[in-house]
Amino acid sequence: MRDAVIGVDLGGTKIYTALALPAGELLAEVVAPTGADGGLEQVLAKIVATVRDVTSQAGPDLTVRALGIGAPGPLDAETGLVYFAPNLGWHNVPLKDLLQKALGLPVGVDNDANLAALGEQVFGAGRGVRSMVYITVSTGVGGGLILDGRIYHGAGGGAGEIGHTTIDPGGPVCGCGNRGCLEVLASGTAMARRAREIIAAGGGLNMLGATGGLPGKVTAKTVADAAAAGDPEALAILAEAGRALGIGVANVINLLNPELVVLGGGAMKAGPPLWQAMEEEVRRRALQASLARARLVPAQLGSRAGVLGAVALAARALDNGTLL
Amino acid sequence: MRDAVIGVDLGGTKIYTALALPAGELLAEVVAPTGADGGLEQVLAKIVATVRDVTSQAGPDLTVRALGIGAPGPLDAETGLVYFAPNLGWHNVPLKDLLQKALGLPVGVDNDANLAALGEQVFGAGRGVRSMVYITVSTGVGGGLILDGRIYHGAGGGAGEIGHTTIDPGGPVCGCGNRGCLEVLASGTAMARRAREIIAAGGGLNMLGATGGLPGKVTAKTVADAAAAGDPEALAILAEAGRALGIGVANVINLLNPELVVLGGGAMKAGPPLWQAMEEEVRRRALQASLARARLVPAQLGSRAGVLGAVALAARALDNGTLL
Repeated sequence: MRDAVIGVDLGGTKIYTALALPAGELLAEVVAPTGADGGLEQVLAKIVATVRDVTSQAGPDLTVRALGIGAPGPLDAETGLVYFAPNLGWHNVPLKDLLQKALGLPVGVDNDANLAALGEQVFGAGRGVRSMVYITVSTGVGGGLILDGRIYHGAGGGAGEIGHTTIDPGGPVCGCGNRGCLEVLASGTAMARRAREIIAAGGGLNMLGATGGLPGKVTAKTVADAAAAGDPEALAILAEAGRALGIGVANVINLLNPELVVLGGGAMKAGPPLWQAMEEEVRRRALQASLARARLVPAQLGSRAGVLGAVALAARALDNGTLL
Repeated sequence: MRDAVIGVDLGGTKIYTALALPAGELLAEVVAPTGADGGLEQVLAKIVATVRDVTSQAGPDLTVRALGIGAPGPLDAETGLVYFAPNLGWHNVPLKDLLQKALGLPVGVDNDANLAALGEQVFGAGRGVRSMVYITVSTGVGGGLILDGRIYHGAGGGAGEIGHTTIDPGGPVCGCGNRGCLEVLASGTAMARRAREIIAAGGGLNMLGATGGLPGKVTAKTVADAAAAGDPEALAILAEAGRALGIGVANVINLLNPELVVLGGGAMKAGPPLWQAMEEEVRRRALQASLARARLVPAQLGSRAGVLGAVALAARALDNGTLL
């Protein structure tokens, strides 16, 4: 018999569940709709169904020993209590206890961004690194911190919110209520908003053309594609977002002196124009000694980062009975 | 026989050495000039002399068991190698090995700001707290991080440099070369510079009068005193510095979700006008859930924070033979 573990990346719209060997080899994967509208009971039933689904695909020589799950919101990783998950409508849900009871397995719970960071550290861009900042740039800007080899959670499970650090004190208002957050300046949403602003002012014809003349259809990908084709307005949007990212990255380098900053998320796919502007700004603003120690690298695991982090969490439980 | 420990706060101009009980009670203290101009050998001899001085004041029932020392620069706390200490002219000095040889005692070394943070956590404002950000606002703005109960050093011993996080991307040039660092906006030096700018523009008569008409003599204390007497220009300088501090503090609250932010250093003595502006800005910019967990409090140990942190480091070595 060989040991196997389950990783679950629980999101507001879908549940991504995998069966894996503790070393990270994925044996079976399934993605199912979360069905958050049906309430807590239904979401739990869906999770259990996906677990049974991937488990049934395991060979007879495998024994599932533990499950790790990432939830979208701040939580207490020790007790597995999810304080708040707006996309699920959850307040104070004892996810660990509920799943342990439902599945008869030891369950480890952490925040989704933290587990994506752990996934990259254990199986991706951060292998062998002890102190790492993970930043994901997509609809929003999120992050996770691995400090001295461990996920750093903070006092209320809320650490890592680099997306809500202030980059430009007088900048645009962010969804969180603050002005000039990294998220409101550099997320994919922000890139698309900037493009629509340019279009509203009579410019952005290349980007507008790419959407058939419908400004509402402009996305970060529209901007990235136009930039790749050399459109100067799109390039300027990426440079602006890259500079904001660079300020945020320089700040975490100066504050945390990490070995590695891993950048992932769909909007980072905009590529060199974004990346170069970011790196220039980091070089301008980071302290020499800390900059010399810090590598900036792209994430390696893509959309599997979270589920692989959940696998890593469960695998750690096998090594270390105290974790779960 | 009772155990005692030695704490040393090594600065560019003076050495502050104390004999203490492991629980933090100071039994003897001495302050001596560092004599950095005389080179490494002379500084080491001075440290040894201050240690002998305080030790000679110990009663016959005390045995000195360990020494902790804070050095002014980034270092490797495990090996005790000081990478760089500009105020001492040091590059790659194996301080721990040199002192262990000279004194025949186990020696623990850490950065001065980290030990001030540890001092506050063990004996001051942070007692019982596991995750704490310590910020000192004086000539510069420095900091130390206690995360999950331990000093967080970062990859090159450079963590905690909140003074060099960017607050205003287009702000004044900082000594580090970056623009708009917290240090260049909110340090005591920055407050004095703002006052001199106002005087140069024909204003600041109250502050100027307090120095006998010599703008070069305006310090942060001049500003604080004028503000305490109700001078609107001085109050505006403190409000501006307080807002910059508030942005920096909100950023660490959002990124690190600490239980406590401890603010010390001479410039914080400017009091309510500085403190209130800071708190208002923090409330404006920090995420609700993280703000709810974070208390902002003044440091309690004043100029003894560093030496008491060194005592705490040495005392920890008694509990835990592996530390030194």
